[in-house]
Amino acid sequence: MTRLYFGGDYNPEQWSPEVWKEDIALMRRAGVNLVTVGVFAWSSLEPEPGRYEFGWLDQVMDLLHDGGVQVDLATPTASPPPWFSRLHPDALPVRADGVRLTHGSRDTYCASAPAYREAAVGIARALAERYSGHPGLAMWHVHNEYGTVCYCDHAAAAFRRWLRHRYGDLDRLNSAWNTAFWSQGYLAWEDIQPPRTTQYLVNPTQSLDFRRFWSDELLGAFSEQKAILRGFTPHVPITTNFVFGAWVPVNHARWAAEVDLVAIDHYPSSAGIGAEEQTAFGADLARGWAGGRSWLLMEQAAGTLHDRGRLHTKEPGRMARHSLAHIARGSRGAMFFQWRASRGGAEMFHSAMVPHAGPQTRRFGEIAEFGTLLPRLAEVEGSSVPAEVAILWDVEAWWAMQSTQLPSSGLDYLAAVRAAHRQFWTAGIGVDFADPGSDLSAYRLVVAPSLYLVSEQKADSIARYVEAGGHVLVTYFSGIVNGDAQVWLGGYPGAFGELLGLRVEEFHPVREVDLASGERGSLWSEDLRLTGAEAIDRYHGGVLDGSPAVTRNRYGDGLAWYVSTQLDDDAYRSLVTKVAGEAGVDAPEPVEGVEMVRRRSGAITWTFLINHGDSEAVVPITGYELMSDAQLVGPLVLAAGAQAVVRA
Amino acid sequence: MTRLYFGGDYNPEQWSPEVWKEDIALMRRAGVNLVTVGVFAWSSLEPEPGRYEFGWLDQVMDLLHDGGVQVDLATPTASPPPWFSRLHPDALPVRADGVRLTHGSRDTYCASAPAYREAAVGIARALAERYSGHPGLAMWHVHNEYGTVCYCDHAAAAFRRWLRHRYGDLDRLNSAWNTAFWSQGYLAWEDIQPPRTTQYLVNPTQSLDFRRFWSDELLGAFSEQKAILRGFTPHVPITTNFVFGAWVPVNHARWAAEVDLVAIDHYPSSAGIGAEEQTAFGADLARGWAGGRSWLLMEQAAGTLHDRGRLHTKEPGRMARHSLAHIARGSRGAMFFQWRASRGGAEMFHSAMVPHAGPQTRRFGEIAEFGTLLPRLAEVEGSSVPAEVAILWDVEAWWAMQSTQLPSSGLDYLAAVRAAHRQFWTAGIGVDFADPGSDLSAYRLVVAPSLYLVSEQKADSIARYVEAGGHVLVTYFSGIVNGDAQVWLGGYPGAFGELLGLRVEEFHPVREVDLASGERGSLWSEDLRLTGAEAIDRYHGGVLDGSPAVTRNRYGDGLAWYVSTQLDDDAYRSLVTKVAGEAGVDAPEPVEGVEMVRRRSGAITWTFLINHGDSEAVVPITGYELMSDAQLVGPLVLAAGAQAVVRA
Amino acid sequence: MTRLYFGGDYNPEQWSPEVWKEDIALMRRAGVNLVTVGVFAWSSLEPEPGRYEFGWLDQVMDLLHDGGVQVDLATPTASPPPWFSRLHPDALPVRADGVRLTHGSRDTYCASAPAYREAAVGIARALAERYSGHPGLAMWHVHNEYGTVCYCDHAAAAFRRWLRHRYGDLDRLNSAWNTAFWSQGYLAWEDIQPPRTTQYLVNPTQSLDFRRFWSDELLGAFSEQKAILRGFTPHVPITTNFVFGAWVPVNHARWAAEVDLVAIDHYPSSAGIGAEEQTAFGADLARGWAGGRSWLLMEQAAGTLHDRGRLHTKEPGRMARHSLAHIARGSRGAMFFQWRASRGGAEMFHSAMVPHAGPQTRRFGEIAEFGTLLPRLAEVEGSSVPAEVAILWDVEAWWAMQSTQLPSSGLDYLAAVRAAHRQFWTAGIGVDFADPGSDLSAYRLVVAPSLYLVSEQKADSIARYVEAGGHVLVTYFSGIVNGDAQVWLGGYPGAFGELLGLRVEEFHPVREVDLASGERGSLWSEDLRLTGAEAIDRYHGGVLDGSPAVTRNRYGDGLAWYVSTQLDDDAYRSLVTKVAGEAGVDAPEPVEGVEMVRRRSGAITWTFLINHGDSEAVVPITGYELMSDAQLVGPLVLAAGAQAVVRA
Repeated sequence: MTRLYFGGDYNPEQWSPEVWKEDIALMRRAGVNLVTVGVFAWSSLEPEPGRYEFGWLDQVMDLLHDGGVQVDLATPTASPPPWFSRLHPDALPVRADGVRLTHGSRDTYCASAPAYREAAVGIARALAERYSGHPGLAMWHVHNEYGTVCYCDHAAAAFRRWLRHRYGDLDRLNSAWNTAFWSQGYLAWEDIQPPRTTQYLVNPTQSLDFRRFWSDELLGAFSEQKAILRGFTPHVPITTNFVFGAWVPVNHARWAAEVDLVAIDHYPSSAGIGAEEQTAFGADLARGWAGGRSWLLMEQAAGTLHDRGRLHTKEPGRMARHSLAHIARGSRGAMFFQWRASRGGAEMFHSAMVPHAGPQTRRFGEIAEFGTLLPRLAEVEGSSVPAEVAILWDVEAWWAMQSTQLPSSGLDYLAAVRAAHRQFWTAGIGVDFADPGSDLSAYRLVVAPSLYLVSEQKADSIARYVEAGGHVLVTYFSGIVNGDAQVWLGGYPGAFGELLGLRVEEFHPVREVDLASGERGSLWSEDLRLTGAEAIDRYHGGVLDGSPAVTRNRYGDGLAWYVSTQLDDDAYRSLVTKVAGEAGVDAPEPVEGVEMVRRRSGAITWTFLINHGDSEAVVPITGYELMSDAQLVGPLVLAAGAQAVVRA
Repeated sequence: MTRLYFGGDYNPEQWSPEVWKEDIALMRRAGVNLVTVGVFAWSSLEPEPGRYEFGWLDQVMDLLHDGGVQVDLATPTASPPPWFSRLHPDALPVRADGVRLTHGSRDTYCASAPAYREAAVGIARALAERYSGHPGLAMWHVHNEYGTVCYCDHAAAAFRRWLRHRYGDLDRLNSAWNTAFWSQGYLAWEDIQPPRTTQYLVNPTQSLDFRRFWSDELLGAFSEQKAILRGFTPHVPITTNFVFGAWVPVNHARWAAEVDLVAIDHYPSSAGIGAEEQTAFGADLARGWAGGRSWLLMEQAAGTLHDRGRLHTKEPGRMARHSLAHIARGSRGAMFFQWRASRGGAEMFHSAMVPHAGPQTRRFGEIAEFGTLLPRLAEVEGSSVPAEVAILWDVEAWWAMQSTQLPSSGLDYLAAVRAAHRQFWTAGIGVDFADPGSDLSAYRLVVAPSLYLVSEQKADSIARYVEAGGHVLVTYFSGIVNGDAQVWLGGYPGAFGELLGLRVEEFHPVREVDLASGERGSLWSEDLRLTGAEAIDRYHGGVLDGSPAVTRNRYGDGLAWYVSTQLDDDAYRSLVTKVAGEAGVDAPEPVEGVEMVRRRSGAITWTFLINHGDSEAVVPITGYELMSDAQLVGPLVLAAGAQAVVRA
Repeated sequence: MTRLYFGGDYNPEQWSPEVWKEDIALMRRAGVNLVTVGVFAWSSLEPEPGRYEFGWLDQVMDLLHDGGVQVDLATPTASPPPWFSRLHPDALPVRADGVRLTHGSRDTYCASAPAYREAAVGIARALAERYSGHPGLAMWHVHNEYGTVCYCDHAAAAFRRWLRHRYGDLDRLNSAWNTAFWSQGYLAWEDIQPPRTTQYLVNPTQSLDFRRFWSDELLGAFSEQKAILRGFTPHVPITTNFVFGAWVPVNHARWAAEVDLVAIDHYPSSAGIGAEEQTAFGADLARGWAGGRSWLLMEQAAGTLHDRGRLHTKEPGRMARHSLAHIARGSRGAMFFQWRASRGGAEMFHSAMVPHAGPQTRRFGEIAEFGTLLPRLAEVEGSSVPAEVAILWDVEAWWAMQSTQLPSSGLDYLAAVRAAHRQFWTAGIGVDFADPGSDLSAYRLVVAPSLYLVSEQKADSIARYVEAGGHVLVTYFSGIVNGDAQVWLGGYPGAFGELLGLRVEEFHPVREVDLASGERGSLWSEDLRLTGAEAIDRYHGGVLDGSPAVTRNRYGDGLAWYVSTQLDDDAYRSLVTKVAGEAGVDAPEPVEGVEMVRRRSGAITWTFLINHGDSEAVVPITGYELMSDAQLVGPLVLAAGAQAVVRA
């Protein structure tokens, strides 16, 4: 039985050896079994070019190992030391407007700069040489939150190489970018630039390709380090922590194939129930990237949530609920940034497992309590998180939708996907996230929220799934452009017209819109002409009065639904429930305020129950409750804010 | 009888020859008789320096000509190809903060750069050589929406040359710029810079002169091309499309004298009635620039209106109403950007005559219907659009009022002029726009809304007009600075104090203000002392309680009204009606919801009627209705959204 | 008996000699006795490098002297002429993002550039040589509103020199900056940069030190000029005008020791009563910087107040009330920017003593009336402004709190200090401002509003004050970081935990919060654990329900109060009144709408009374009223807007 990880980023370089000893003692008290060391320690490890100071890290590794704490050892390449930028000013990153950034923060490098790549590989190799045989080494953590992009000449050259590889010749590129528009035809590779600051609107395909390029370029940087680490320690798993938020720098779905363990950092941005919803969303997404295998919550905040300009302090028990909600969805534990709150520096008010006020605090008390209970849940590790519904997720659709030239500035891919996920989460129906091009045959229902960009191949894949009996729910502004971000001509949504049995002549962005059913939508509406579908709901009032708004089309052996507006939550959840019902999706009876997640391994089922409500809940369930280590007698009574894991 | 133009920008370089053939067929179906070709085709025409590819354009010209569609052939100089910026990096434009822009959008050139000017003239000459004899060539379209400015060293040198020409010597410049303030005295021409990013507030006269310079500099660039084209084709009219909006890059009133046909691009920014009002405003302004001669709506959107962050789709019939509203005010037709919607590129969601969904659409249907009816109106071309009221328009007043250092950030020249125009438009009284320095004697009433900057000569011209019996209505914050943007001393509004018979000691910017009459104003009030005028309305409450707010002064044989606050629409319209009445302006009886515009040629009168309302309107008019090609029997019954043109 | 100064900035270089003569005549009429000449006259004094034109200034100095107006002669170093930046482009300032600014405004220099320093000293010496013997010279005015910072290489080198001096060695700097965080360890001084634009969050201690550096660097520039002027005129006082507002460029408390007379520019930013409150605040602060000695209001606006994007025109009498309110608090007169309104340039709409409309105006009338009455108040000059309460003010706490990474973006040092001051001002209790490290023993009560940063030494000083019997009121988010901007560990507020008898485990930023007393707070709350203090009020509802919110702790012979939230004004004033009462602070009975300020010299007391209300007030006071030059008979009846100064 594998252990569940519990711990966080540990930065001993900020503290004295006396504090290290207290740290180990406190870690033992809190059940910490894994810490990430060295993420930003480059200047402590290599204070001058080529002069390494491993002494302090040797000590820390030994102390941790002796204390029973395993080490997720990081390569510190996310923040080169100041001397690096003095020696290699050409490796400092440059913004789109040509401003070259200075060190003094973090991530002040261009990953296309040869000097940076060489230095990064160098420090990674030095660490591997030094610690490959250390018994405390449990995992490699390459870099931190890959996502730094640059517009300098190194980046421009790398971008051109990437484009040559993608397109082969300039005719293909000119066609893909539609450069005939605004006289942008390229006759020489060297004329192509990153989408640097220009006079007016930028070419959207150029922008999209620049995003794709950087994802691949950074993956190349990761892979270089990975190859070295693998060489020294063939059996130590290698990961990097994926950053996720409103900012989505790389194609995590593609990166997931290159790491031994998918790991995410997750910082919800709401003080209320939105944080729970985001927690479920992020965890489901991570599991999707991991292809259903277990993954790891590598960073979360111990004590705070971002809430529109302020830090909201997590209420008693909330840290534990968030941790469990991630584990329920497949995380192999719960890790934090960071162990001990920094006393200075840019993030000194970032919460930590050991706060500024020290261990004699409610905060550390909760950490220790949860860490002590966590081993009781170890048996769930490796079990699956079954789902009958898949929501499609494609970061390229997001990138393309970040164009500033869409018909409405309110169009928001992330918001659309979150809204779809929210309805299932509220209804208590588990979902997976899946790539549009993946094998969807295992699902009863597939949802495609605002899948703006879709390649011919992926559109075909979805159609074949429906043809074979699958059910799909597509929402507004899906299937508009192909993989080159060029419009599917002949009527929207070009990629899905036949599948959905309809054709849209024009978009009608709106503020609000009424439906005949009494439901309401907002943001968007479309002038639908049915070519086979039936209308399930219609627009009421306005210029589209009486036109279809929600439709259903039989396609092969399956059903294809379409929603042409942004439904209000109530309307959307009611539709989703109906669609799921027709698809035969199993929908458990929800208990007010209680989040339920099921995991399974062979015949064994575990039900995770988290009471987000303000009052006690009674859950009709039987079995063995792991956290209290006791057989349930009668229904489970879950106090406000409490949680349980029941094995059936 | 001249034809009315119908068509739009045509970009065959984005499509295959198969599509060209469909295009010609569709154009014929839609009554298209003129298309603008090649606006952004430089990289297609000259893919490498000096290597021209005219083959495709030869074909297109021939196809169009054979199809009966005339060509407005553009010089593609608004977007140099990528190779141009590689060869001439010094010709890329530089922002005020020193950032040099990159190609990849459009307009990435500095019009003061010798290399750009040479290349622009080169491609213009090549086109002229090639197509001067083509039978399809009906018009030359130089460049596109002139207005790109730059702060580079080329621009700085050109600015200094322009200043030398304007001022002759530095003493005059130092005096005009009041450089004694903040130690800015210039002793050497080379010390003068464009108003580049500086520490704090900029010199307002320097900024104003930079705007004047760029208008003239761009006019120089236009004139160079014009001279070449004229040389090849002495009888083909030459134009360029004026851009207009919140952005006003050049002095169109001055440019109008240099083009053979005034042409404007017009994209209203409101989803509601505001779009109709803006349509009338823009059309009246264009006719003003054209000095009453016919002009051309060169670009409008076929299907959408900008509406605070989203595109509003034009309702059925609205495109036709907008088109007719322009023609009613003197446009020699209705043109669109663009013929066929692009499938990629920055403006792929810009609406078009042939939308993404193709010709089998409501959108194309309306285009074809309007295009087919349009020839019935051809007889109006060349007739005048009579008006008894002139609103003064001076772009230099606007530029000067764009200073960030006015007593209130709410002062807005365009809004003030729009508000004045709105009152007449709502009251159904036709207006012209006129330059303050022009001969105003033909008008019964002249309105000067917030004419902040006025030279001594123009102020005199207005005074002489009133002295001779004219009526003038001046509004707040007029006559404040002279042509050097320096305050007319001795009491505001210095330029008009004698004319108005009053003197303002201080401004009182406010949020809202009440008048004794019960009317309301906002934004602005002034401490008026009468020196001959009589008070028509007074402030009520506040620090100016009882002071005059609206005044009237007899001056020579005329009357001069003054409004010292920003009146609410109702109050303003009521005042305007009163003032127009006293001036003897003919005010037709308005029909609810129906816009009426009259044109005249000798004894013939045409009345354009557009029902913007939601219900049927009955208009007591007799004559021959051109669009239905029928004599009216009884009053004209105009359905909601319908339009008519009645010849009396 | 010393005179009170009355006058303003005088810019004869903008006007002709004819106007100068009118100026002198008007100054005499208005009682003007001091004008500041030459602040921005560099280009008029030295139009070409090394060629001086003193003729015009000679004339002006003579005219003024002959007219009985003394001269505060300025060195014009705040705006080098255009030729200076041509000759020394390296002396133009550079922004954090690397943009080098251009001349054409003012303050376009880097004070670390050797060329600038040399030129500044040069023009100062030339002026001193020329005018040291002029009988009209009464004061030297060095530069203008010191505060211009720069990020160029000169500045970087100076910053490094300053850091070497502050820290001695890099270990100390690395420790103070906590550079172990994010791998910022410095091994070479040359690796240290100004906080230029970087990738992500900046090091907060680096930012703070850069503010400290610039304050000292500019003080160095001032001192160089001062030394020269002193050499020529050992007995002429030397000053510079401190700028104050939302922007706080230098450490005025430290600068005050280097000037012979503290002088401030003061431009309140409210149209309502807020302007009176700000007036009192600014004047109290200036007196604090002056250490209780008299100081001078060097600039105020004659006619306008800034009010969210517009200029609000001062109502009749308001200019006089503002002037008197400053004098009441120790200003040695009332000066204005500027004498005569400029007719052009960036500040042409800045109000002036002689407005654009000329002297025949209400504005100039009020100026002349006040200036004529002012000599009657001369006897108050030199008397003290006694106060029993001190509010602590430390600009370093402000600078540190300008970090963008605090737990709430609503935390605002200036707002917190203003709020504390407001309660006393409303309650009619006079206050001083004092540095936290100064001798506080003279005060009955000391208030420390959000004193985020406090060094160990200053914290000790406050504790010793309380121990010896003083009373202190500390508010939320005080005592959080030490002088290196590093957290005082072990529980907030680390610097004051023992003094206050409590310990805060975590902050709870909120929007609003209720207290058990029924009062309300906002923005902030804290999880307080009492370690000796008693709870005076508690949180009501929410996660902190029942926890202490306001506390009191006996410490030595004194009392230490703590408020852990941002109280609403009513609650705050009521608390302040209670705390002041317990401290034995004398609180005069307030008269509705009337501001009262007392000054004292030996046994004589002067009471300044200003009626800000809309109705007549009756004040029970006896004595001799200076402004009417009359003995009071019966109580003082103060009309709405009126003012009086009563000698008892």
